[in-house]
Amino acid sequence: MDLTHFDEQGRARMVDVSEKAETSRVAVARGKISMKAETFERIRSGLIAKGDVLAVAQVAGIMAAKQTSQIIPMCHPLMITGAKLSFNLVEPGEVYIEATIKVNGKTGIEMEALTAVSVAALTIYDMCKAMDKTMVIGDICLVEKLGGKSGHYRKS
Amino acid sequence: MDLTHFDEQGRARMVDVSEKAETSRVAVARGKISMKAETFERIRSGLIAKGDVLAVAQVAGIMAAKQTSQIIPMCHPLMITGAKLSFNLVEPGEVYIEATIKVNGKTGIEMEALTAVSVAALTIYDMCKAMDKTMVIGDICLVEKLGGKSGHYRKS
Amino acid sequence: MDLTHFDEQGRARMVDVSEKAETSRVAVARGKISMKAETFERIRSGLIAKGDVLAVAQVAGIMAAKQTSQIIPMCHPLMITGAKLSFNLVEPGEVYIEATIKVNGKTGIEMEALTAVSVAALTIYDMCKAMDKTMVIGDICLVEKLGGKSGHYRKS
Amino acid sequence: MDLTHFDEQGRARMVDVSEKAETSRVAVARGKISMKAETFERIRSGLIAKGDVLAVAQVAGIMAAKQTSQIIPMCHPLMITGAKLSFNLVEPGEVYIEATIKVNGKTGIEMEALTAVSVAALTIYDMCKAMDKTMVIGDICLVEKLGGKSGHYRKS
Amino acid sequence: MDLTHFDEQGRARMVDVSEKAETSRVAVARGKISMKAETFERIRSGLIAKGDVLAVAQVAGIMAAKQTSQIIPMCHPLMITGAKLSFNLVEPGEVYIEATIKVNGKTGIEMEALTAVSVAALTIYDMCKAMDKTMVIGDICLVEKLGGKSGHYRKS
Amino acid sequence: MDLTHFDEQGRARMVDVSEKAETSRVAVARGKISMKAETFERIRSGLIAKGDVLAVAQVAGIMAAKQTSQIIPMCHPLMITGAKLSFNLVEPGEVYIEATIKVNGKTGIEMEALTAVSVAALTIYDMCKAMDKTMVIGDICLVEKLGGKSGHYRKS
Repeated sequence: MDLTHFDEQGRARMVDVSEKAETSRVAVARGKISMKAETFERIRSGLIAKGDVLAVAQVAGIMAAKQTSQIIPMCHPLMITGAKLSFNLVEPGEVYIEATIKVNGKTGIEMEALTAVSVAALTIYDMCKAMDKTMVIGDICLVEKLGGKSGHYRKS
Repeated sequence: MDLTHFDEQGRARMVDVSEKAETSRVAVARGKISMKAETFERIRSGLIAKGDVLAVAQVAGIMAAKQTSQIIPMCHPLMITGAKLSFNLVEPGEVYIEATIKVNGKTGIEMEALTAVSVAALTIYDMCKAMDKTMVIGDICLVEKLGGKSGHYRKS
Repeated sequence: MDLTHFDEQGRARMVDVSEKAETSRVAVARGKISMKAETFERIRSGLIAKGDVLAVAQVAGIMAAKQTSQIIPMCHPLMITGAKLSFNLVEPGEVYIEATIKVNGKTGIEMEALTAVSVAALTIYDMCKAMDKTMVIGDICLVEKLGGKSGHYRKS
Repeated sequence: MDLTHFDEQGRARMVDVSEKAETSRVAVARGKISMKAETFERIRSGLIAKGDVLAVAQVAGIMAAKQTSQIIPMCHPLMITGAKLSFNLVEPGEVYIEATIKVNGKTGIEMEALTAVSVAALTIYDMCKAMDKTMVIGDICLVEKLGGKSGHYRKS
Repeated sequence: MDLTHFDEQGRARMVDVSEKAETSRVAVARGKISMKAETFERIRSGLIAKGDVLAVAQVAGIMAAKQTSQIIPMCHPLMITGAKLSFNLVEPGEVYIEATIKVNGKTGIEMEALTAVSVAALTIYDMCKAMDKTMVIGDICLVEKLGGKSGHYRKS
Repeated sequence: MDLTHFDEQGRARMVDVSEKAETSRVAVARGKISMKAETFERIRSGLIAKGDVLAVAQVAGIMAAKQTSQIIPMCHPLMITGAKLSFNLVEPGEVYIEATIKVNGKTGIEMEALTAVSVAALTIYDMCKAMDKTMVIGDICLVEKLGGKSGHYRKS
């Protein structure tokens, strides 16, 4: 099997989806950022007191989803019809991020969901880096995908 | 210790670096994308034959480094003076990505390096997703940082 | 009534419009910039002689309408099908700006029209600020809205 | 006095500031958005409960400040060194927005401060428009300006 | 015949295409960059050895096609469904660039194809300018256009 | 001589200019767009009557100069200190475009000047394409370059 993202000369291209039908699509991606317990506590306290890191990360993730086709070279532009990010704090030092993106389009929106998660994690890193340089972003993957010719995918 | 990214009302702000001196700075970040052996082989063969996924990922990573302050809400704009990405393929299915970014500026460029790695990984995902939906992006972290008041940092 | 822009956790989201029908939509927004009589005269003379401030403001407003979903965090991306700005000069010192934006889409384009007016006003400010720092931008509001489930709205 | 933004042919240009010295600069801009009492209450309750409209508006304003030279045609690119937005809620229905932007540069940053205020106001509009189409954005003006050849300006 | 891009007051506008039908469209544009034989040889050797200038130019061209409506003021935003660039090296010193862009939309995509060619040529210039400042970009034109009311156009 | 834009592995990079001194730099680029006499007449009449194509092209060119580092992959970001475009109409059907860009920086701004000319030409094409599909953009080249280690260059 060969990658559809290259033409017969081996040059990268944006795959031609002109003939594909528009279907209703959903993609869910997930990832996490691991940190010191002290940093984790600071983020958690911000949820109830002043200084909510996750509120900024959420806006960043949603805006990044909309910019995906300008960040990832061979991504098709898509008009997202819904975007949602949620966070799950797991002691002693992990913030899980999940993004759900929707579109009616000719091609999937996995990249939008993965980009939203990545940028939300980077934003958390940015806002906490003054107190913790050892944070690690990881486990970014596609969790679920609905719509399109390939049908339903769910990470096992 | 509190996060400098919030003001006294708990509202996010771009930290005021007006009074900081311009120094020569370097940041190195790293990450990886794990995939099926078959996908890995396809990427490796592209290095010597037609269809080089990593060439596209590299351009994407460098362009993303330049867009960092527009993607990460509280990041200062910086005029990058050098950007370099390298890849290391480890059998049976891991591509390591390392980004080195330089600037003469009032604030660090960790975020530019981390963003370059993230976007390069996302681009690899995008170009290979037709053959492998199970790829996972991870271990994104700061490896080294030179310059600025906090001095030399090296991940232990 | 609660704001649809927040989820059950109180986190901002891009409202899900996947199930809404595409309809033909129009939005008209208006605003003004007030200035010294001397500044006003300079703008007016530019219309007939050299140095047309409004020609630059108009291009800026139309380009901003196209960037709205990248400037306003929770705005849906929309493919504008028409954009028009007009100016009305009222002595002794007010320039009125009106923007009419059209789209066939699942959600309204009020924000595109309001953004076009705002950016046109800011551009006028920018080009005249060397001679007048006292300009004030105001009265930016939605004038009319056609299409979509909520139907016809007209400012009373 | 003629506008420096036009050349001898009457064509718009970006003013040549090559020979100007870099100085430390600050600009403060202000504006407000007026709304129904019901909408105002909803925003105020979001500050203490779930769904903080102003948190989103603040991120939008700061990000817009960084994009100013790409939105306003003749604006010089500047590397902002600090950006801060604050809100003041005045009963029964007005939200005042104030932006303070800093830079060390060859030219002023009034436009960045004014753009931050405008975009924060537009974001509030966007997030509340489902419950109130009659909101009006106004009184956007420069409050204070420090640094540069023209010295200290303070709105009287 | 008058230009549709101006309104009755002579002001530029984005042409209203709301009532036009969506059709399947293709545009092909072409251009070239002429250079010293030595520069040409360096580009050619990069195709088979290390340092492929054209791989970078290709990514740049495809990304630029997606940004066209943000670069060209009166261009409608369009959701490109396919983008492809190819290069043809003609001795002793010319690189021909051809871009083929597809969309299902209400208006044509000539500008996307022409922009892709222009940016690919500029990227080649950028990457070779250290060894050759005399390069010339030229002959950028529309080669073919399919779809839309005006039907098939082919450069004679 | 090898291209500095590639590293030892043959991978593209942004050249490291960290150690270069900031100098005052100027670049002048030129190009033209050729068209039918009828199209040319329409543009010329717009200069004195309603509908000035060149006013839009000029704004587009200046805005594009500021976006150059986001369009051309390996270009360094630079803070332009001045940008100017002029047009020269030569019968029966050629519009010459000249861009002069200034910066104080570590690297040259040829690309900004060449990009400004290219985008101005593309904008003219866009606005006139309804009446003339045969226009050709060409002769885009660097005319003059001042500042930097390589000193004064002037096209012979």
